[in-house]
Amino acid sequence: MGSLASERTVVGWAARDATGHLSPYTYTVRHEVVGEVVEVGPEVSKHRVGDVVGVGVIVGCCRECRPCKANVEQYCNKRIWSYNDVYTDGQPTQGGFASTMVVDQKFVVPIPAGLAPEQAAPLLCAGVTVYSPLKHFGLTAPGLRGGILGLGGVGHMGVKVAKAMGHHVTVISSSSRKRAEAMDELGADAYLVSSDAEAMAAAADSLDYIIDTVPVHHPLEPYLALLRLDGKHVLLGVVGEPLSFVAPMVMLGRKAVTGSFIGSVDETAELLRFCVDKGLTSQIEVVKMGYVNEALERLERNDVRYRFVVDVVGSNIEEAAGAPAN
Amino acid sequence: MGSLASERTVVGWAARDATGHLSPYTYTVRHEVVGEVVEVGPEVSKHRVGDVVGVGVIVGCCRECRPCKANVEQYCNKRIWSYNDVYTDGQPTQGGFASTMVVDQKFVVPIPAGLAPEQAAPLLCAGVTVYSPLKHFGLTAPGLRGGILGLGGVGHMGVKVAKAMGHHVTVISSSSRKRAEAMDELGADAYLVSSDAEAMAAAADSLDYIIDTVPVHHPLEPYLALLRLDGKHVLLGVVGEPLSFVAPMVMLGRKAVTGSFIGSVDETAELLRFCVDKGLTSQIEVVKMGYVNEALERLERNDVRYRFVVDVVGSNIEEAAGAPAN
Repeated sequence: MGSLASERTVVGWAARDATGHLSPYTYTVRHEVVGEVVEVGPEVSKHRVGDVVGVGVIVGCCRECRPCKANVEQYCNKRIWSYNDVYTDGQPTQGGFASTMVVDQKFVVPIPAGLAPEQAAPLLCAGVTVYSPLKHFGLTAPGLRGGILGLGGVGHMGVKVAKAMGHHVTVISSSSRKRAEAMDELGADAYLVSSDAEAMAAAADSLDYIIDTVPVHHPLEPYLALLRLDGKHVLLGVVGEPLSFVAPMVMLGRKAVTGSFIGSVDETAELLRFCVDKGLTSQIEVVKMGYVNEALERLERNDVRYRFVVDVVGSNIEEAAGAPAN
Repeated sequence: MGSLASERTVVGWAARDATGHLSPYTYTVRHEVVGEVVEVGPEVSKHRVGDVVGVGVIVGCCRECRPCKANVEQYCNKRIWSYNDVYTDGQPTQGGFASTMVVDQKFVVPIPAGLAPEQAAPLLCAGVTVYSPLKHFGLTAPGLRGGILGLGGVGHMGVKVAKAMGHHVTVISSSSRKRAEAMDELGADAYLVSSDAEAMAAAADSLDYIIDTVPVHHPLEPYLALLRLDGKHVLLGVVGEPLSFVAPMVMLGRKAVTGSFIGSVDETAELLRFCVDKGLTSQIEVVKMGYVNEALERLERNDVRYRFVVDVVGSNIEEAAGAPAN
């Protein structure tokens, strides 16, 4: 998660390499960045100065491999992260906790009118992370029955996106602690406690998909039993320990254990338009830069509903860091 | 695998319940049955006396559930096996090592002209077991690159069907023992020994699918690494022990571990026509009923290429068992 101090050094770097590139002014949420275009390079055609735009977690890719040619650059083996990575010029990528950021236009998404910048930020990562697999696996039709496993930042977007698609949404959790939150605040249709054997049995063979956001080891078989014919269990959480199941759990019902990883720039743009169309908003807590270290501590405790958005512009960070105003 | 003696009792039972049903005379291969229609019930419209027809491993289903309504009755939770099961009338189902067999017309497939009955038999189970997932998962286009893991009865059909579709086929095996068989006899394009780390690394990120026919525990991660973007690992072997992999192996590349189970009657009929069109034949060893116990022993040792077909008609089993001629 890095310290704020190291990320602040981006202020100096970002200003040195603007030719041919966008320089959005930044809001940010854990590095998914929304801001205003302040300068464009001579070859930039997609965006103009003054546009409100967003940048997700990827700022580079090879453009030659199959994933790149299919416009799913998040699967490119040479993808470059927007932070803690090395750019094509050998310089570190520094993320968006910064006054300005230089990004190739390919990785910049227009924020449509009707979507507040602070609302858009969580959509650029958590939002597209759930939208992408629903779209790709053909799970967008109204009336589908979906399960959302785990109710954190990605899970809450899962409930909202699936509900906006017209799905019947069941939140599945290890305890009943988040029942009211899921049902009353997020609008889920059902709530299932995974340790309640009777309720789990009653829900067997009922779901078209499960969006699995749990980032720690967990059994898969209880959830595979909830899927019906051709149901898909979509892993979104990076879990280091192997996950396991017996083969007949997928063979009988032609189910799939699959996974997905963020989403493409194209899918992100599509999601933002979808959110405007459906009036979908994310649940966020906007904080100033001075609060960031406290926010990071609260993140460690899962004490946020559901994403912090850091208002960088309103935080006057250049002055605080003593960086040149460029 | 049952003894032949118990399966022979079908002769008496099969004759008692013919009204409204088909009574095919039988060839058979491990219960996938091909024969000639000798009698039809009054409501039979799909088949006529004299037709050459086949019966797979399923002879009943509920007709009400989602799988039944989607014509994938193999996934019906109330499916009835053609052997070692109980029919709707409370009587045991007895398979096709028999002079006659009574089957509802829904589960009877016409054997097209141009396909020898003994050739058709293995297609009704092993054949459709590989054809069904290729069809269902959209893996039929020429030029796809497929892997066949394990070269037994199902695997050999996998090579033949995939080649007939115009795929580039790699046989993956634990040793080099079957290389000539795979390449020269079955026409595979490549042969990969799973313990050859260098060859496995060179083949990384190259396959659109793997048909996994291995019926014992095996690691999945080495094979998931062979799949490219959106690649599918299709489990066809019933393995009792859990199979495992770490989540990023499917997330990065949006791969899927899925499975499939035999195939539907409709898919079986489609496969038979496909085989006639493509001139696809299965590799079989035709034996008489008197050889069956020896054949079963050889099956236990994997000593068959690749399926035995029992010529029941040519074996005069009624006389041998002393059953009434009906």
